[in-house]
Amino acid sequence: MAIETIKWVKGTARMIDQTKLPTKLEYINCRDVKRMWSAIKRLEVRGAPAIGVAGAFGVLLGVQKFKGTDRPAFLKLLHQTCDYLSTSRPTAVNLFHMIEEMRSVALNNSEADVKTLKTQLFDKAMTIFQEDRQVCRRMGDHGAVLIKNGMRALTVCNAGALATVDYGTALGVFYSAKTKGRKFSVYSCETRPLLQGARLTCWELTREKIDTTLICDNMAATLMAQGKVDIIFAGADRIAANGDTANKIGTYMLAVLAKYHKVPFYIVAPKSTFDLKITSGKQIPIEERKSEEVTGFGGVTTAPKGVKVYNPAFDVTPASLISGIVTEYGIIKSPNVRNIKSTLK
Amino acid sequence: MAIETIKWVKGTARMIDQTKLPTKLEYINCRDVKRMWSAIKRLEVRGAPAIGVAGAFGVLLGVQKFKGTDRPAFLKLLHQTCDYLSTSRPTAVNLFHMIEEMRSVALNNSEADVKTLKTQLFDKAMTIFQEDRQVCRRMGDHGAVLIKNGMRALTVCNAGALATVDYGTALGVFYSAKTKGRKFSVYSCETRPLLQGARLTCWELTREKIDTTLICDNMAATLMAQGKVDIIFAGADRIAANGDTANKIGTYMLAVLAKYHKVPFYIVAPKSTFDLKITSGKQIPIEERKSEEVTGFGGVTTAPKGVKVYNPAFDVTPASLISGIVTEYGIIKSPNVRNIKSTLK
Repeated sequence: MAIETIKWVKGTARMIDQTKLPTKLEYINCRDVKRMWSAIKRLEVRGAPAIGVAGAFGVLLGVQKFKGTDRPAFLKLLHQTCDYLSTSRPTAVNLFHMIEEMRSVALNNSEADVKTLKTQLFDKAMTIFQEDRQVCRRMGDHGAVLIKNGMRALTVCNAGALATVDYGTALGVFYSAKTKGRKFSVYSCETRPLLQGARLTCWELTREKIDTTLICDNMAATLMAQGKVDIIFAGADRIAANGDTANKIGTYMLAVLAKYHKVPFYIVAPKSTFDLKITSGKQIPIEERKSEEVTGFGGVTTAPKGVKVYNPAFDVTPASLISGIVTEYGIIKSPNVRNIKSTLK
Repeated sequence: MAIETIKWVKGTARMIDQTKLPTKLEYINCRDVKRMWSAIKRLEVRGAPAIGVAGAFGVLLGVQKFKGTDRPAFLKLLHQTCDYLSTSRPTAVNLFHMIEEMRSVALNNSEADVKTLKTQLFDKAMTIFQEDRQVCRRMGDHGAVLIKNGMRALTVCNAGALATVDYGTALGVFYSAKTKGRKFSVYSCETRPLLQGARLTCWELTREKIDTTLICDNMAATLMAQGKVDIIFAGADRIAANGDTANKIGTYMLAVLAKYHKVPFYIVAPKSTFDLKITSGKQIPIEERKSEEVTGFGGVTTAPKGVKVYNPAFDVTPASLISGIVTEYGIIKSPNVRNIKSTLK
């Protein structure tokens, strides 16, 4: 894969500016935590695993310029940084998990001095970065067994290299299957309102020479009725202990349509996307974003001024509609509290 | 209603240019049949009943400038005009019905001279125009009984004043219910790719002071799961003898979701939208439109160059998913060959 979504380069988080794709491939260099917060908020970086890594890098950005050896002051700054980054977006749990992994470096090293803590935080961030790369490839390999020659898969939003460090969750399955020589094609739901499917997934998949067809979200049902969809893969932003899964708005729609048309529906997500502290999807906070995302695009107004808008960024798919969850530990078929717990142990 | 979608003014078809809404309310004056053909093709006028009237007006435009008294030459021009207009768009049957109504004026008057035929064609077009106004109001009144106080309805595309002469089919139900003092609110699916829901339905409904909330098409499932949709109304472009209904892409999706969430799903369409010559929806030709409608909007590119696109403009909802069809003759509940035939007799 030649896509480097997020990377640490000499004290800076270098990231693809995903708001500019597909027309421009530009990078932003985040040099401080405020810039990282706004990059997450504005979706310059997005995708649950990618914003997990962005969160870890954000913590580094927040503490790396600390001068001196005052440990309590350093810890105060660390906690402030972690708390601040946690306010950027509410739904993807990877962000909180990775921020807490960073925080726990300090909590678990009550004797370390500032210099040591800085080194340990840096090492932890690099570990988080590397683990994402490995975990995605493991998920891809597990999921690839589901793809048979001639299959037409469907995906939503972007759960690809651009949603992770460089490989992807749902799209990682396609990359692994392609490497294994499997022949298949992919339908990409455009994913309104911000068109991550059209802008990002189509960009990635065509770059990787995977046979890709773009559709509007409201066409997926028709494709399924025509028997043109053999399997569906989506990513996830947070998975509850019972398997209920929050993902980009439109995922639940696909899951219901898949059930009706008897199409297998898979989620692809790493352990870091599971939130085992919550028992069901009802407890997942769903981000609502501003109405302008729906009433216009790229400066073009597409709705009358002042019309009310409902714009949830995510929805929750109940576990009962999910054929399986592909994780780095293998595929959890018909997910429930027990098999999730035993697989992720 | 203060919206005059299409009107005959001194030898010209005056129509709202619907490609400019919601930002500009502009009119076009069609003075010849070629301009009408492209207005239909380009969706400057759209909506099955409206393009039925546009077809009739188009025939008038085609023949009105005929000079002389040569009856065979006049009939030849009439047939050419009718055949030409029939190539503008394939799915909405109202277009073909109204063109054939115009053609039959001549076929049924084998003795009339050119001057008489011209008068009869003019009278027929004005009758078609007036009937649309009356029929829509009758459908609205029949459908309004389905709307109870406090209901939250959902609609797709634009089946409103802008899809007819001046009142609407699905939205006509809302206008009638409002006149009767019913309190309710409406969710409008934006309806990708051309956003007729966002651009046209929201414009109409907010103008008429109906409580309206815009959503992306992929949010309808979530609203239904939240119990926020009590009833769905959609228009139609063609209804087969068995009740299978072609309408704007996304309608079938809503019908499946409605079934799953136990939400009543109604079609609102006049007799002229029924095609009793075909036995099922499988025989309805579905227009596929150009990929640029999906890969960009208003000059903004939203997908990578060269990506394949599937862009059907319509889908077919099987009668089994339709709670009822509201017509000018009353509501056909659980539509099938028999009750459709007996209602429309």
